[in-house]
Amino acid sequence: MAGLAYGAPSTSIQATDPVKHALNVTREQDFAAWYQAVITEADMAEESGVRGCMVIRPWGYGIWERIQTLLDARIKQTGHENCYFPLFIPLSYFEKEAEHVDGFAKEMAVVTHHRLIQKDGKMVPDPEAKLEEPLVVRPTSETVIGAAFSRWVQSWRDLPVLINQWANVVRWEMRTRMFLRTSEFLWQEGHTAHSTVDEAMEETMKMLEVYRSFAEECVGLPVVAGEKPENERFPGAVATYSIEAMMQDGKALQAGTSHFLGTTFSQAQNIKFQNAEGQQELAQTTSWGMSTRMIGGLIMVHGDDDGLRVPPRVAPYQVVVVPMLRDTEEDAAIVDYCTDLVNQLNGLDVFREPVRALLDKRPSKAATKRWGWVKKGAPIVIEVGGRDVAGGNVSIIRRDRLYRADGKLDSQIVAKGDFVAGATAMLEDIQASLFADAKARLDGNINRSITDLDALKAYFKASKNPGWALVQWAKPTGAELEKVVQWLKGEKLTLRNVPTDAEAADGACIFTGGTAVERVLVGRSY
Amino acid sequence: MAGLAYGAPSTSIQATDPVKHALNVTREQDFAAWYQAVITEADMAEESGVRGCMVIRPWGYGIWERIQTLLDARIKQTGHENCYFPLFIPLSYFEKEAEHVDGFAKEMAVVTHHRLIQKDGKMVPDPEAKLEEPLVVRPTSETVIGAAFSRWVQSWRDLPVLINQWANVVRWEMRTRMFLRTSEFLWQEGHTAHSTVDEAMEETMKMLEVYRSFAEECVGLPVVAGEKPENERFPGAVATYSIEAMMQDGKALQAGTSHFLGTTFSQAQNIKFQNAEGQQELAQTTSWGMSTRMIGGLIMVHGDDDGLRVPPRVAPYQVVVVPMLRDTEEDAAIVDYCTDLVNQLNGLDVFREPVRALLDKRPSKAATKRWGWVKKGAPIVIEVGGRDVAGGNVSIIRRDRLYRADGKLDSQIVAKGDFVAGATAMLEDIQASLFADAKARLDGNINRSITDLDALKAYFKASKNPGWALVQWAKPTGAELEKVVQWLKGEKLTLRNVPTDAEAADGACIFTGGTAVERVLVGRSY
Repeated sequence: MAGLAYGAPSTSIQATDPVKHALNVTREQDFAAWYQAVITEADMAEESGVRGCMVIRPWGYGIWERIQTLLDARIKQTGHENCYFPLFIPLSYFEKEAEHVDGFAKEMAVVTHHRLIQKDGKMVPDPEAKLEEPLVVRPTSETVIGAAFSRWVQSWRDLPVLINQWANVVRWEMRTRMFLRTSEFLWQEGHTAHSTVDEAMEETMKMLEVYRSFAEECVGLPVVAGEKPENERFPGAVATYSIEAMMQDGKALQAGTSHFLGTTFSQAQNIKFQNAEGQQELAQTTSWGMSTRMIGGLIMVHGDDDGLRVPPRVAPYQVVVVPMLRDTEEDAAIVDYCTDLVNQLNGLDVFREPVRALLDKRPSKAATKRWGWVKKGAPIVIEVGGRDVAGGNVSIIRRDRLYRADGKLDSQIVAKGDFVAGATAMLEDIQASLFADAKARLDGNINRSITDLDALKAYFKASKNPGWALVQWAKPTGAELEKVVQWLKGEKLTLRNVPTDAEAADGACIFTGGTAVERVLVGRSY
Repeated sequence: MAGLAYGAPSTSIQATDPVKHALNVTREQDFAAWYQAVITEADMAEESGVRGCMVIRPWGYGIWERIQTLLDARIKQTGHENCYFPLFIPLSYFEKEAEHVDGFAKEMAVVTHHRLIQKDGKMVPDPEAKLEEPLVVRPTSETVIGAAFSRWVQSWRDLPVLINQWANVVRWEMRTRMFLRTSEFLWQEGHTAHSTVDEAMEETMKMLEVYRSFAEECVGLPVVAGEKPENERFPGAVATYSIEAMMQDGKALQAGTSHFLGTTFSQAQNIKFQNAEGQQELAQTTSWGMSTRMIGGLIMVHGDDDGLRVPPRVAPYQVVVVPMLRDTEEDAAIVDYCTDLVNQLNGLDVFREPVRALLDKRPSKAATKRWGWVKKGAPIVIEVGGRDVAGGNVSIIRRDRLYRADGKLDSQIVAKGDFVAGATAMLEDIQASLFADAKARLDGNINRSITDLDALKAYFKASKNPGWALVQWAKPTGAELEKVVQWLKGEKLTLRNVPTDAEAADGACIFTGGTAVERVLVGRSY
């Protein structure tokens, strides 16, 4: 395989349209710089001046609000209720679970004082206001939620407990990248307690499937769902499952995880119940989370050299209408025509969710606004000039097919009424086409035929942007697994997951030569 | 005036219904203990084990979600967009604005380390991982958002900037009370920047009106909107406005604030723009916030001796259906009948928001469930037994009128189809009746005729639960105002606000004897 190829940037538009300001870098030139340029040029987020933390601007946050709305509905449909737990967790809560605290100790923000005083003209923490027990800013909430579960659960009748929270969490990352790895990030974390292993495992897999279907259907990200190998488990988990998405540079992004925690946290936090036979048992718990990282995935899967492309279901605005004004008498009629169009779209159809349409009335030039919305990735941009009003038409640009084969902008003129009648279908078509492109890229770039390590090395070195390899392995554990992980690390590779839908193993383990028991995905990763 | 009177608790029901478990305290006996009992018995929130922080449970959080949904829509309708800014604020940001930092320094949680290590078998902050500059956990975000505004604003064309964020904030309170005053709380904070004082003041008053109308129309809390006196201003504000709600014990609760900040923060954070004439000017900024405190107000305004009463617009479930099962063959038909009812309600009418209905299938006794939902304050509780199914009926309890005049439970039998057809209207009627009761209480307990301090003292001592007094004053400032505040403090009274709709002053200042210039509300407060 030749590895992943980016679409060619359109140069003819650049040459013919003096207003177009393309990104200052293409994916091919420098994928990491391109990623940052998209975030900046689409006004999604920016550095905050606070180490490792970003400001999420309205267009980025609007995408997050859409993710919240759509994912929250699926979390509630599967029987979970939202709660809110404290931001601060006493150190003693963590000490109860050694593996868990070890996993997070290196990156915890610690609150030690509760007051400031003036000293030598500067504000400093007041030595008199030192906390008796330091508080950790939550990196994840298993411990503090486990403490609540231990109060809530007494009898088998109290089970299952099915809750979720939308919250900010802090992990003090040394190298940060916007949306992908920030010291503070936003997420939802689900936490459940059950009376049996089977039920807890069923929950773990159910939420993995919620994540898979949400990522594919709403964010348009095709993913591979599967179990993480032992070395990639969440600290304290018995089993960790993930969805992995393939970025345009071939790297894997873990876009959601679901953990079966067994009795790890019910032992640490004493979550016990009396079973139907009157005996005390430890509850079986799970947790699962998805974060603002998803937005980083959306950018790296759907963006192109003109900026972001947002799938319609998660687009803050799905249709943006730009009136082409010329400071003439005609302007008022154009604005009226556009206002009517937006009103029709916003209230499109009471039997469906209305189309989210925006009238962009800012004073800038129409062409400047057009390219601004192209960079932001609004699914449909409409321009309306005097000729369109006279003809009862609108000029449409679809962000998923911006250019014709000759490299010219693919602007289509259609009757206004026809556009309104077909807007929902066109948006669904854009959603489907973005997904289909990404799906073809994923499916076409997983090598399933590599059976020895030399070939594996060669595959990942053969191109700048290799995809993944699905290889057979013996599922080594402990020191043997560590050897595999270290060998892969030398090649800048990681184990992603064991796909739940992969075919059964029928050969030798690529790493140990022993009998393979399953297939595991290998790739570079974020 | 005799002061506020609580409705008498119903003893006849208690005597005749063996299942009913009333709260263990009435409002009359101990209002503070009653407040806590409602929160516990309605499963709204609980102590978390983390000092000053609470766990908000699903019923409490569900109310917050409704508040978020409805208030967010009004914030967006008025042109604001949501963003997200960092949880952590570097100390240096605060040092730039002396009055602001003084106002918050006493109650700030300070992060000083970013790693834990093991020492003598305990986890402790790693001395090697001390932050160069301590970070404050945001108590409010004027400083960090001001820093962003200074990047965003260059020209008059960039103004106004109209943004909002939903976030958690931390103020290290020494005495905490659930929902009213907790170390961490949830809120929205709006922040805007404008080119002129007039426009910023217009924004300040617009958001005050958004809060007033939201509190009254959605939460059913009648409020008095007005300007806070100088001593009650937000640290750094030029003018602070509030809405004040009257609790059933007569005390005032500040339920939302809107601040005109002038150039305080644009000076500190350097928010400058070039005006149309090419000159540099400082932007005029505002901020405004409403928090989970609103839920405390909801409890203390609408609760009664049977528990909470939630106004339908903010109720997580508006109609709860309880099947009366007897482990007989009839049960399946009852459950089917109830399921159909809930489905009809949930999809009631595509032209309106559907009714939020829940089928309570838990295994407990129907009467236990009924009283559980009464305590939680679900607006309508429906019980369905075999006789109801046979007759095509439902038995309805309205939470706003639980008892008949003779003290018996006011359960009404109506045809199922009639109930479904009238459900939206009935919910609106409940919303209106809860508001009307509270409005009558507010209007009937503001004494407007007191003109001397002896009478003022006497009024507040004449009853256990006095209301408020609206008195004329000369609007003293500085030391003179401080004298007034101290005198009031001796009487356990505070200045609430100067109502925007109060009639003009026409007499002497009750405090100084000078000519009054306006009328100010005086009352006990939370």
